[in-house]
Amino acid sequence: MKTRIFISEGHLIDSGVMSEILNVILSEGADYKVLSFEIGKVKTEKSKMELLLKCKTAEQLSVVSGRLTALGAYEKGAVEAVFKPAEKNRCVPEDFYSTTNHRSEVFTGGRWVPVGSQRMDGVIVRHGDTLVCTKLRDVKEGDSILCGSESVRVFPPASDTRGSGFGFMSNEVSSERSSSITVQRVAEEFRSIKAKGGKVTVVAGPVVIHTGGGTALAELVRDGWIGGFLGGNAVAVHDLEYCFYGTSLGVDLKTGKQTAGGHYHHMRAINRINYHGSIQGAIDAGDLTSGLMYEIVKAGIPYSLAGSIRDDGPLPETQMDMIKAQAEYAAIVKDSDLILMLSTMLHSIGTGNMTPSWIKTVCIDINPAVVTKFSDRGSGQTVGIVSDVGLFLRALADNLAVKHS
Amino acid sequence: MKTRIFISEGHLIDSGVMSEILNVILSEGADYKVLSFEIGKVKTEKSKMELLLKCKTAEQLSVVSGRLTALGAYEKGAVEAVFKPAEKNRCVPEDFYSTTNHRSEVFTGGRWVPVGSQRMDGVIVRHGDTLVCTKLRDVKEGDSILCGSESVRVFPPASDTRGSGFGFMSNEVSSERSSSITVQRVAEEFRSIKAKGGKVTVVAGPVVIHTGGGTALAELVRDGWIGGFLGGNAVAVHDLEYCFYGTSLGVDLKTGKQTAGGHYHHMRAINRINYHGSIQGAIDAGDLTSGLMYEIVKAGIPYSLAGSIRDDGPLPETQMDMIKAQAEYAAIVKDSDLILMLSTMLHSIGTGNMTPSWIKTVCIDINPAVVTKFSDRGSGQTVGIVSDVGLFLRALADNLAVKHS
Amino acid sequence: MKTRIFISEGHLIDSGVMSEILNVILSEGADYKVLSFEIGKVKTEKSKMELLLKCKTAEQLSVVSGRLTALGAYEKGAVEAVFKPAEKNRCVPEDFYSTTNHRSEVFTGGRWVPVGSQRMDGVIVRHGDTLVCTKLRDVKEGDSILCGSESVRVFPPASDTRGSGFGFMSNEVSSERSSSITVQRVAEEFRSIKAKGGKVTVVAGPVVIHTGGGTALAELVRDGWIGGFLGGNAVAVHDLEYCFYGTSLGVDLKTGKQTAGGHYHHMRAINRINYHGSIQGAIDAGDLTSGLMYEIVKAGIPYSLAGSIRDDGPLPETQMDMIKAQAEYAAIVKDSDLILMLSTMLHSIGTGNMTPSWIKTVCIDINPAVVTKFSDRGSGQTVGIVSDVGLFLRALADNLAVKHS
Amino acid sequence: MKTRIFISEGHLIDSGVMSEILNVILSEGADYKVLSFEIGKVKTEKSKMELLLKCKTAEQLSVVSGRLTALGAYEKGAVEAVFKPAEKNRCVPEDFYSTTNHRSEVFTGGRWVPVGSQRMDGVIVRHGDTLVCTKLRDVKEGDSILCGSESVRVFPPASDTRGSGFGFMSNEVSSERSSSITVQRVAEEFRSIKAKGGKVTVVAGPVVIHTGGGTALAELVRDGWIGGFLGGNAVAVHDLEYCFYGTSLGVDLKTGKQTAGGHYHHMRAINRINYHGSIQGAIDAGDLTSGLMYEIVKAGIPYSLAGSIRDDGPLPETQMDMIKAQAEYAAIVKDSDLILMLSTMLHSIGTGNMTPSWIKTVCIDINPAVVTKFSDRGSGQTVGIVSDVGLFLRALADNLAVKHS
Repeated sequence: MKTRIFISEGHLIDSGVMSEILNVILSEGADYKVLSFEIGKVKTEKSKMELLLKCKTAEQLSVVSGRLTALGAYEKGAVEAVFKPAEKNRCVPEDFYSTTNHRSEVFTGGRWVPVGSQRMDGVIVRHGDTLVCTKLRDVKEGDSILCGSESVRVFPPASDTRGSGFGFMSNEVSSERSSSITVQRVAEEFRSIKAKGGKVTVVAGPVVIHTGGGTALAELVRDGWIGGFLGGNAVAVHDLEYCFYGTSLGVDLKTGKQTAGGHYHHMRAINRINYHGSIQGAIDAGDLTSGLMYEIVKAGIPYSLAGSIRDDGPLPETQMDMIKAQAEYAAIVKDSDLILMLSTMLHSIGTGNMTPSWIKTVCIDINPAVVTKFSDRGSGQTVGIVSDVGLFLRALADNLAVKHS
Repeated sequence: MKTRIFISEGHLIDSGVMSEILNVILSEGADYKVLSFEIGKVKTEKSKMELLLKCKTAEQLSVVSGRLTALGAYEKGAVEAVFKPAEKNRCVPEDFYSTTNHRSEVFTGGRWVPVGSQRMDGVIVRHGDTLVCTKLRDVKEGDSILCGSESVRVFPPASDTRGSGFGFMSNEVSSERSSSITVQRVAEEFRSIKAKGGKVTVVAGPVVIHTGGGTALAELVRDGWIGGFLGGNAVAVHDLEYCFYGTSLGVDLKTGKQTAGGHYHHMRAINRINYHGSIQGAIDAGDLTSGLMYEIVKAGIPYSLAGSIRDDGPLPETQMDMIKAQAEYAAIVKDSDLILMLSTMLHSIGTGNMTPSWIKTVCIDINPAVVTKFSDRGSGQTVGIVSDVGLFLRALADNLAVKHS
Repeated sequence: MKTRIFISEGHLIDSGVMSEILNVILSEGADYKVLSFEIGKVKTEKSKMELLLKCKTAEQLSVVSGRLTALGAYEKGAVEAVFKPAEKNRCVPEDFYSTTNHRSEVFTGGRWVPVGSQRMDGVIVRHGDTLVCTKLRDVKEGDSILCGSESVRVFPPASDTRGSGFGFMSNEVSSERSSSITVQRVAEEFRSIKAKGGKVTVVAGPVVIHTGGGTALAELVRDGWIGGFLGGNAVAVHDLEYCFYGTSLGVDLKTGKQTAGGHYHHMRAINRINYHGSIQGAIDAGDLTSGLMYEIVKAGIPYSLAGSIRDDGPLPETQMDMIKAQAEYAAIVKDSDLILMLSTMLHSIGTGNMTPSWIKTVCIDINPAVVTKFSDRGSGQTVGIVSDVGLFLRALADNLAVKHS
Repeated sequence: MKTRIFISEGHLIDSGVMSEILNVILSEGADYKVLSFEIGKVKTEKSKMELLLKCKTAEQLSVVSGRLTALGAYEKGAVEAVFKPAEKNRCVPEDFYSTTNHRSEVFTGGRWVPVGSQRMDGVIVRHGDTLVCTKLRDVKEGDSILCGSESVRVFPPASDTRGSGFGFMSNEVSSERSSSITVQRVAEEFRSIKAKGGKVTVVAGPVVIHTGGGTALAELVRDGWIGGFLGGNAVAVHDLEYCFYGTSLGVDLKTGKQTAGGHYHHMRAINRINYHGSIQGAIDAGDLTSGLMYEIVKAGIPYSLAGSIRDDGPLPETQMDMIKAQAEYAAIVKDSDLILMLSTMLHSIGTGNMTPSWIKTVCIDINPAVVTKFSDRGSGQTVGIVSDVGLFLRALADNLAVKHS
């Protein structure tokens, strides 16, 4: 019998963390004994549990311990962290610790040291006294890699600070909700972030333009609500096509009718930007005078267009090297307070992968499968909304404009 | 070789009817020869085709002829219709003619006689000089039933009158469209129908209330835009629950939070109507003072709530006998100019089954599968919109209110 | 400040019930104090909590108490139940207790008395010493109705008996799962129920036939795996159409091609049954010799076809009176051990409404929204599977046939 | 009034091409006169139409002409093609001709010259006597670019050769079909291509592995049915994770239970390949001994893994430069006879963009929106199937294995 003693503290009951801890143990075929449990007697009090984990093998102990650590439980009697050198570039010891997206600390040098650059699926590298969450591909031979989970404690937002998340929606994803309410709540969140000088980052797919939401989103950028923009080649090209020709993939956005054949306007829009050398060039030349990309460039907010295998063109601005694109995205995500993800599974998951759990995210899509998929990955800080993104953005922009003026 | 000569007239090319005729023949494994074809040389001119249908067996001839008839082709040299007596109640001769939902005529007594009460999947019964489309279950022993399709001509709207349908959307069903445009077009259609003294009938499911669309729909009823209402028990109970308790299935529609446990308010609302004996009773007693059902009853527009296997209660107004419910629905559908179907596959298909093809229908649902399913059944008069019904109704009501005032 | 003391016992932590209790209190704006908490120290031990609920108003106390009761908490110091007479038929006192679908007991006459005929959304009527869960519409003037939730305790399966549910799937609904695994688990469940002499009831929609699953389901009936069948008019007519003409809504199930025009074969199938007077009549006459309905009737298992507003025909067997149809369904549901719900939201929810929480249910649909909607209503006994029902049934029948032979 | 005379030849009626021609003209607000029309009198005869297009402006004439050209109509009296030099790299004259994915010819030097490297959204560049379809980004300053559509004729498969496409499914996308039939048809297509020495290319997303379809697909590769493989980083990592640890994103594919925490095994699998330096290295070292990637590498079939913004790792084999990834994909697509697209919108659309219209494609996804989106882009050569990809691949592999042995 292999055992370890874990401590778990916080709002363990109402956050559901304690249920998860016991269920993880049971589903892995391991066993437990609760050594002590002090329940938070009133809602502001935290609970504290001391638990003996009982496993059949060392392998099982290691797997279950890793999962409990991810839920915020930590080894009783802090154990000094073990670091081992990376044998090769991009290659770490087999028992490496794989990070969550929650705030983390490692017990090393006799104290709990916070980890920097927190993100999902990284490894923790020691550089002198500091610990940095590092992507596997950035590991160099000889880097000092944290191994095992015994010396790690993580702070999932749910048990860390009660009610810091959105109160307005549970995890349920449903199209049978009133979107008017969610528009109001998102608007309130925008105002509250603006008041604090915070930053809202938008991740948007091409459907935003097809559904006529581009105009509303451009207004939000113009009026200073948005501090960062993440997308791909398509959302930008569709926006430019609309500004130059009034269509999106050849469909007239005023009448809904197909006008130009297939992608003709789409390719013309790219060609026109290529003529100017850049979107900025088209603005400077007076050729581009409105729209989402116009407002983004004019406002000078940071943006990144990540390329993909399905891109036409691409635009000069589109980053076709995914290593660089991920770096650009990460830089914009970094100091966001809220990320609004609009109708793009690809870029939303890309963004989610690099987003620490304490940044709030709202995901809006008409396809419940997308919203569910995203919510499953997220923490309690994630809200999923199944709605028509064009009508949603219009209602959001109207709400913020009224209160704004 | 069994053959027949068919004539097809109208806007055969642009409506796609002629493609369908040839494809039906080929897909059935039959063959054809075009005997003559006069194409409409300009857009206002109709085309005319005379076609020899060649089949291997009499059975094949009968099947293919039936399908061509449904596409508006008819036998050259009108053949006097054959009527045979029904052997039993609800039972017709094996070779009975099964109706489409298009305007139809039968060649009998030496002339083309129009068919009354047109609907899908009926049989044609002769009563003296008149022909009536009749549901199978209403056939009585000895009724005179039209057999074979040789003496029938039908008039699908597509080839009958060009452009009578909605110009604003093709058959494509997509969530990647601008709903703002469709809101405008539907609003224009409403105004145009009102100006002509016509009638808009609404078919609504409970999601209308859950998504907060009930208030907007109630405004439309109050302002005189709606002339008939079709639904089930649930949409009415949810509306009443909202008016009495502010919730829909226990979810507070102002805050989006679950308040009452499960169905508690739902059952209380039914109980409260039962106390008054009827919705009208609750209004008379001053207990019900707002909402969708309130406006419907107050406006005195005809409505029917069709029961189903999943109903709680039901309300006194809910018709639990489906034979009677279908009769109530049919009476309201009859003189409609436009039917707006909102988030209910069950009641929409029920309504569609009894609706002649010349009545325009608009189907709005957030689930593309529902919209596609409905559009597949419909004629060119059907428009499918994938959107958030709560936001859609709010935008529609706002559009009509502004123009109205 | 209005207060009450509640006791909650069972597997409170791992079932998540305790989280739910605290969250209900907080989301209603009420407050609590944990008076005592004994945690189950090992996995077989139950936990026990005593909790002081603190509310601002009597109204809030009543609402929150009702919700806690539904989660299995009960008033400390059993309070004698209050029964009040129904003022009118179908109308109960305003503060009536609305039932859940969990096993329940009421403290009356100084002891905990179990409630019979448990179902969702009923009221509890006292007849002498017995308590019967009764549909609102069956309440008669003067019936003795349980009011308030103070004297009720319910036993949600989750906290009642650990692990009695399906171990094989969590509540997550996802199309990104291996259906091969779920086929195996469902097959194991079938075998285990058969071994115990239990009953599997199937609820099936017309898509079962369209997708070619009818043959597989007929095999399951023939081989004795199914003990009850619930459906509507459409599933039966499609099956009969297939048996008579090889098509389903005119589509040849062997080739996938549209053969007959629209609903022609569909109406002919109904007419043919009408000729014989019943499905049994068609079998006796040697006209119907295979298929799902054939096997069901031949096996003599109980079945019910509930009518709906969208029915053609209907068949003589279809029950068009929804009050009677619900009674027929309830009789078949009653002694089921497992209910398999196949591609029909309407009949699945109808069935779910009358199913006690201790009966296991498996819901299979290709549309995740249907599966999610159903799972949201269900208890831990409900498993949702997003898959292709035709392929699923084929794989299930093959699995059971192999092991069977 | 600006006019042009167009000729259209082929199976104009049954293909629906002629309807499309007239509808394009009318929807653009232009007008027409049919100058002559000879209908194909029997099914093997082609039709021929001469049509006067009447436009209000030169701009309209140019737009409508371009759309008619895409439908296979061409200018009467061949007009010598106009080529203009590209002003800059990646930038062509404003009136450039944007290609379709259909076989094309250009009238230049007094004769119809075929275009090489046909793909969608390219431009046509003249190099001496040859014409090459070229991506905009590959255009160099001074390249000779085809302008206008007057000298182009394209050959859409639908009107080019009757029945060359799949006969088994119309354009309709529906989950209400029998997948057993489509499995058989796809299997027949596989056998027919193998018999002719042709090539089937597979495009696969990670859901193939999650749903347990990886094993079936690996069998198809092993047995020589597959000639090319296109995917992304995720499908390969999930497959490797399954082969190394039995899980896919931590879910045990044998039991369906979550075992390892989150992405832990996922990152370990990448790390393990990084250790060996490549998948080939892991095979050589005897560490990787089964699975999809194993069979692909062992069989030596060409494959490409295109990176994306959401990739973890990535694997050494994943191409993170999208320009290079598109080139790799195009090389594999080039000589394919059939492309099977499995549960990945991103890579399927990427592949579709570079696929000429004469290559057959089959798209399988459980989400109807994906299938519809893809079918909308495709020609008549595209078949969309809504099904469970895991069960579908299992049934396909079983079908081919039986017949194979």
